[in-house]
Amino acid sequence: MERNYKLTVSYDGSRYYGWQVQPGKKTIQGKLQDVLGVLCGKEVLVIGAGRTDAGVHARAMTANVHMDTDLSEAEIRDYLNRYLPEDIAVSEVKIASDRFHARYNALTKTYRYTCFCGPVKSVFDRKYLLRLDAVPDVERMRRAAALLLGEHDFKSFCGNSHFKKSTVRRLDAIDIRLRRDYLTITCTGTGFLQNMVRILTGTLLEIGFGKREPEEIPAILAALDRTAAGYTVPPQGLCLIKVDY
Amino acid sequence: MERNYKLTVSYDGSRYYGWQVQPGKKTIQGKLQDVLGVLCGKEVLVIGAGRTDAGVHARAMTANVHMDTDLSEAEIRDYLNRYLPEDIAVSEVKIASDRFHARYNALTKTYRYTCFCGPVKSVFDRKYLLRLDAVPDVERMRRAAALLLGEHDFKSFCGNSHFKKSTVRRLDAIDIRLRRDYLTITCTGTGFLQNMVRILTGTLLEIGFGKREPEEIPAILAALDRTAAGYTVPPQGLCLIKVDY
Repeated sequence: MERNYKLTVSYDGSRYYGWQVQPGKKTIQGKLQDVLGVLCGKEVLVIGAGRTDAGVHARAMTANVHMDTDLSEAEIRDYLNRYLPEDIAVSEVKIASDRFHARYNALTKTYRYTCFCGPVKSVFDRKYLLRLDAVPDVERMRRAAALLLGEHDFKSFCGNSHFKKSTVRRLDAIDIRLRRDYLTITCTGTGFLQNMVRILTGTLLEIGFGKREPEEIPAILAALDRTAAGYTVPPQGLCLIKVDY
Repeated sequence: MERNYKLTVSYDGSRYYGWQVQPGKKTIQGKLQDVLGVLCGKEVLVIGAGRTDAGVHARAMTANVHMDTDLSEAEIRDYLNRYLPEDIAVSEVKIASDRFHARYNALTKTYRYTCFCGPVKSVFDRKYLLRLDAVPDVERMRRAAALLLGEHDFKSFCGNSHFKKSTVRRLDAIDIRLRRDYLTITCTGTGFLQNMVRILTGTLLEIGFGKREPEEIPAILAALDRTAAGYTVPPQGLCLIKVDY
């Protein structure tokens, strides 16, 4: 009998061209579909809550897949973890309602960008952070972040200039913390445009380093122009933390 | 003026043939000597507290090097961190007494072996641990560990069958912890023979999984024969935590 399964997936995105299947390229969705395709004996479609970019990681991406199998939830999970590459893991498989859709039903997503701003390189987590040469002013960053909360047209923070659909999104929280030498910027919102968290982070860092003023945010939003915002920080510091339904 | 500098070094050993210089191979000592050789304009010798094997990591290896340079301690540290590969970092450089010798003066060293025994693969720290399929019995392992403490001839736990010098060492502590799905075995002692921590860990795991009895330890020690002890666990779970002087 065909059932709809909800999967919780973590991955180190370093070696992948992002979540979404692309012909001839290694992607997370592609690897999951390959392994589950063998399990089911036919092609399956794995629907993710979002599409992470090349090099971006996830602690708990949510996905769903309709499959016909006799295996139990735990057996599917163990099968996946046995045959997936070592940088992709499935922490949970659960039968969901037939109508559950990982992308359409997602209420909010939480992404975290991690920077390291100590004098000494960090060796063991170096692939999951951006190194900064100095410590930015967190209070300035927080003042700017407050001006980004709520519903806005985030066109200035969209990395895809050909994007035709609405660029209105709601940002519920931006939490900025500096603990020991780690600076984290955690964003929760209804959805994120391509590169949006990375452009938000780049803009906040420019503000933290005094290259822009926190009070510029309304004008950056109003410009509806990518060139008005700050730079796109590299992907390796970004991680999808969780998806709420 | 030539001074003796004490260095504290951390490294991800995955890409290296261990600490010690070997012709034509990438080693930690070799990388440090290369960078400091350029800084000094002549060859230098970096003396480490111990020689970690290929694939073994360090959080705080201690080393010393005699050099003639006008740079301050912090400048030497920053120079090293700028030119060393991203998987080697120097957290401290300090002028030491001329007689300080990182190996001869070391009183104790602490190594930690990390295993992961949860049902779901760990993605982000997978290169720094050994995955186990089940959870061993920690109480059995602790009973065995207690029998290993103190001064013994550890010849049965020496991976180098051609080793000619004394194989007597003193083990001060073996701390075994299971927290969430992580099992750590932390050994402190006066010094460790080649592969000794990995053979100790392999033997303790065999005891934890019921393949041997804790009470066999005295006989294994008395055998003075490598084949009497358990298997050598792989290097990636091992990390030199600190060296005390």
